[in-house]
Amino acid sequence: MREDPGCVNLRWALALFDGLVAGGMRHLVLSPGSRSTPLVLAAQRQTLLTLTPILDERSAAFFALGVARASGRPVGLVCTSGSALAHWFPAVIEASASAIPLILLSADRPPELRGWGANQTIDQMRLFGVHVRAFYDPGLPETTPDAIKWLRALGRRAAAESLGDWPGPVHLNLPFREPLVPGPDCRAEAAQVQTAVQSQASSHRLGLAGGWTPEAGRWPLTASLTSRCSGRGLICCGPGDWTPAGAAALWRLAARLGVPVLCDPLSGLRFGPASDPRVTHYDSLLRRPTTATALRPDWVLRFGRAPVSKTLLNWLADVPTILVDPGHGWSDPNHDVWLKIDADPQVFCAWLADLEFGAPDQDWLAHWIRAERRLEGLIAEYLDQAPWCEAHLIRTLIARLPEGEGLLCANSLPIRQLDTWSGQRRRTLRVFGNRGASGIDGQTSTLAGLNAGGIPTTALLGDLSFLHDLSGLLQLRGLSRPCLVINNGGGRIFDALPQHGLPGFEALWRTPIALDLGALARTFGLVHRLVSDGPGFEQALSEALQGSGPAGVIEVMIDADLSRRIQSELWSALAALDELD
Amino acid sequence: MREDPGCVNLRWALALFDGLVAGGMRHLVLSPGSRSTPLVLAAQRQTLLTLTPILDERSAAFFALGVARASGRPVGLVCTSGSALAHWFPAVIEASASAIPLILLSADRPPELRGWGANQTIDQMRLFGVHVRAFYDPGLPETTPDAIKWLRALGRRAAAESLGDWPGPVHLNLPFREPLVPGPDCRAEAAQVQTAVQSQASSHRLGLAGGWTPEAGRWPLTASLTSRCSGRGLICCGPGDWTPAGAAALWRLAARLGVPVLCDPLSGLRFGPASDPRVTHYDSLLRRPTTATALRPDWVLRFGRAPVSKTLLNWLADVPTILVDPGHGWSDPNHDVWLKIDADPQVFCAWLADLEFGAPDQDWLAHWIRAERRLEGLIAEYLDQAPWCEAHLIRTLIARLPEGEGLLCANSLPIRQLDTWSGQRRRTLRVFGNRGASGIDGQTSTLAGLNAGGIPTTALLGDLSFLHDLSGLLQLRGLSRPCLVINNGGGRIFDALPQHGLPGFEALWRTPIALDLGALARTFGLVHRLVSDGPGFEQALSEALQGSGPAGVIEVMIDADLSRRIQSELWSALAALDELD
Repeated sequence: MREDPGCVNLRWALALFDGLVAGGMRHLVLSPGSRSTPLVLAAQRQTLLTLTPILDERSAAFFALGVARASGRPVGLVCTSGSALAHWFPAVIEASASAIPLILLSADRPPELRGWGANQTIDQMRLFGVHVRAFYDPGLPETTPDAIKWLRALGRRAAAESLGDWPGPVHLNLPFREPLVPGPDCRAEAAQVQTAVQSQASSHRLGLAGGWTPEAGRWPLTASLTSRCSGRGLICCGPGDWTPAGAAALWRLAARLGVPVLCDPLSGLRFGPASDPRVTHYDSLLRRPTTATALRPDWVLRFGRAPVSKTLLNWLADVPTILVDPGHGWSDPNHDVWLKIDADPQVFCAWLADLEFGAPDQDWLAHWIRAERRLEGLIAEYLDQAPWCEAHLIRTLIARLPEGEGLLCANSLPIRQLDTWSGQRRRTLRVFGNRGASGIDGQTSTLAGLNAGGIPTTALLGDLSFLHDLSGLLQLRGLSRPCLVINNGGGRIFDALPQHGLPGFEALWRTPIALDLGALARTFGLVHRLVSDGPGFEQALSEALQGSGPAGVIEVMIDADLSRRIQSELWSALAALDELD
Repeated sequence: MREDPGCVNLRWALALFDGLVAGGMRHLVLSPGSRSTPLVLAAQRQTLLTLTPILDERSAAFFALGVARASGRPVGLVCTSGSALAHWFPAVIEASASAIPLILLSADRPPELRGWGANQTIDQMRLFGVHVRAFYDPGLPETTPDAIKWLRALGRRAAAESLGDWPGPVHLNLPFREPLVPGPDCRAEAAQVQTAVQSQASSHRLGLAGGWTPEAGRWPLTASLTSRCSGRGLICCGPGDWTPAGAAALWRLAARLGVPVLCDPLSGLRFGPASDPRVTHYDSLLRRPTTATALRPDWVLRFGRAPVSKTLLNWLADVPTILVDPGHGWSDPNHDVWLKIDADPQVFCAWLADLEFGAPDQDWLAHWIRAERRLEGLIAEYLDQAPWCEAHLIRTLIARLPEGEGLLCANSLPIRQLDTWSGQRRRTLRVFGNRGASGIDGQTSTLAGLNAGGIPTTALLGDLSFLHDLSGLLQLRGLSRPCLVINNGGGRIFDALPQHGLPGFEALWRTPIALDLGALARTFGLVHRLVSDGPGFEQALSEALQGSGPAGVIEVMIDADLSRRIQSELWSALAALDELD
């Protein structure tokens, strides 16, 4: 008797999920659809999987991105056939650029319907082009023992590839014939193999699986490195991810070399235990021409991607750079890298710190340390008497966010403001940003995903990034951490760019959107707090953080012109100082 | 002296727009960004272009799709670099599948920054893969006379390719170096050539530019056609686009052959002048087994894409089919086409009607005509005593929408309900649907675009399709035609599918979203009318249609279970009738 084809679909999908779960997947985000039914039925039968249904596939994908960022595990996405999977693309691009593991499971029509004008049928093959690490179309379901074995292996392989030495999204396009629902006699259960293989996944860590180890003996450049990395150099840590042990190895290396460590807000190193060489005020510091000249280094050892600060990036142009990055990216927009080392940063730091170097230039590091401290004092003093603006907001936020929690910072102005004003703190804080492609997109969905992924996370967004992801508001209802929205009337980053003041500037670049954010928040069932000064913000933040209930939205009215003036006045005052240290 | 590079960017972009405007572009939809500045500056200088700024690129693209559907002209899209253009993808897929002309103008970083970890830089090359008709990356701007000539030609070519015999989206990826804003001495004006070439564009018509003409003499199948197309056959018109002259030629051909014309709701033929052979109630009719057998044809002449009705499509399986379609699609999900004719439907109908056929089987056509009339009577009678539901709503809507206006119908349930209940009318009504990929996506943005494209259009959406495109609500504020939302608590199409009643059905398939649509509409500045019965609906519709002010949203509460019961009771009653005619 021929097996119920609906049951074949289900058993085949179950085998795939057996492999995905074995490979570490614990969360699946699905958007409603008919063709994807075998996948949903199979996912329901995997007891280790958490399922989150989200209507809008674009929001679903950014939510999954957040879960994967927070958990370090591959997160699955399921959608139906047609244009549905194209909505994933912006988050797929971000995941690819930021090396975040996603498993894209698109249902498809069977081959006989593709290209024949059938309903909801498009060419889904390799839809994400170069932006996925791997693509598979395993064809129509079968349930021979060999096929089941193959599908389980494919699931494990896809999960492993999403977590490999270049983590990122993996796409599986999965055709199903009708019937999509099995008959009543169908016997289909998840395999019992998960727990045995489960520990495998935990040995992976995002961005830390390196191809290079010093033991490998394929490293003839030791002499070159020790001669290059002495004297007036610096370590620059761009967006990246460090374990506590990795960070400790880094601080030891910096002390050994006698160089400062410039820590990008997304480096994972600004907030948490550190030693003296940590520098965070470089963006203000280097706007002072005499200091920029005096502190120019002879070499740079850079970890992770290029830093957010354009001031820093421009200042580093033409300085010989060693780039350490376990990923396959080649972050070198200034074209200054003379050596790229594809290594685990912790292993590399520990190894380098034990080599023989000349004595460090103690004046050099002391100069940097004094400048960082002096600048922190000047900024605090200056802000004490300045009208309340983003600078105060950010410093309050950094002071108040609880130990070990997360902060999601939007692109454009918020991340740059954070870069300028945050300073450092000893208590841990994980800063997240979708900085791989630096889009305006997907912020509220990513926020929900980060919280669902296990890290209580507050967001700092601008009004436009908040409004770009309206679907994400549907996911914020239960969050115990607030979404802060700086409402300053549109894209204020353009105020600082040459487009400022062009004819049509307001309508075509700044594009403010006249919408009552309070009414909007309430429509989506979110508490809304409106603040416009320091005491108001402190109170709203404290209420939102300490309550056990939903935190909702804090809308912060900011006078963008005032805010910009305060920033440029500070920089002018700094430039006018005779001596900085 | 070296020319101001900001001015080079602008003059080069201007030349491209000279060509695009000459090729027929009149509307440009842009999303804010910095890298795209030369394109925006150039567009501002084209006096024939209307500019619409829309924040969310996904909404912008569906808006452009609507403008292009309504106007038949290529519509431009501009966005910045990074993930921005990926948000266009769902609308690009629909435009490709529905043969709608779009010009995708993505700004990019220059080659030296691509792949080097620069900010907001991803691999944008061929991002849309097979879903665009052509892709160009013309490299960095130059302003030699040859380069300006080339760019103007490229603009004309891209526009022509978007309107060609297989219309669709064309992608131009356009890198710019900084500075993006020209200096004060830059002289840059649009060319004066537009009006000379302007008329060229109007000679194109969407979907009607055919490769085949009878005069071409490459047609040896006349005898085969005349023998095949006699006796008991039918004409089936799927989603397509007919001019009044084309429709007249079609009715003449049907009368000549003595066959009925089954008119899909998106065929453009259900509503408007017609002759007797027009049949619209086939979906109900063919659910009656005896009728389905008695009326089974020997051959089908099909125009346009596959029809919406699955009942019809299944019934037509294994009937030899001649497909006439000027596009490059091959709409044949049943694999029954034995001859595809790549011809202008009007030319083909006129030619075929003049060939020699045997005398038509008059009983055959009479049978169909009586069945259509009888069914219309039975439905009207049945609905008179049934509780108010979608059926009544649709029939009121078809009766009341003004002559020559538009109706945008969402996929899933609304288009199927329209198919079942609409019947026909003599006054023209243009029915639009994003039926190329049949996504749930982009409906409110498409509605705004259709209205902006010059056709006052009302929408009929479900609650989920309305909520999938929240960004589109930002574009509805000024519309003089309403957006009708059938609120029946989620994806009710699943109630009619085998998934109904599965464990987790409500959460994972039907996925209702508890949101107060009234509060939502008001947040976006839209009038909101809530109705739940016939008189309420008639009044709300009449107010919304007759007012000169904004029409807003009409939320129609429908009891989906009742609605479904009424439909199946009618079909049962039909099946139980001894005789239909």
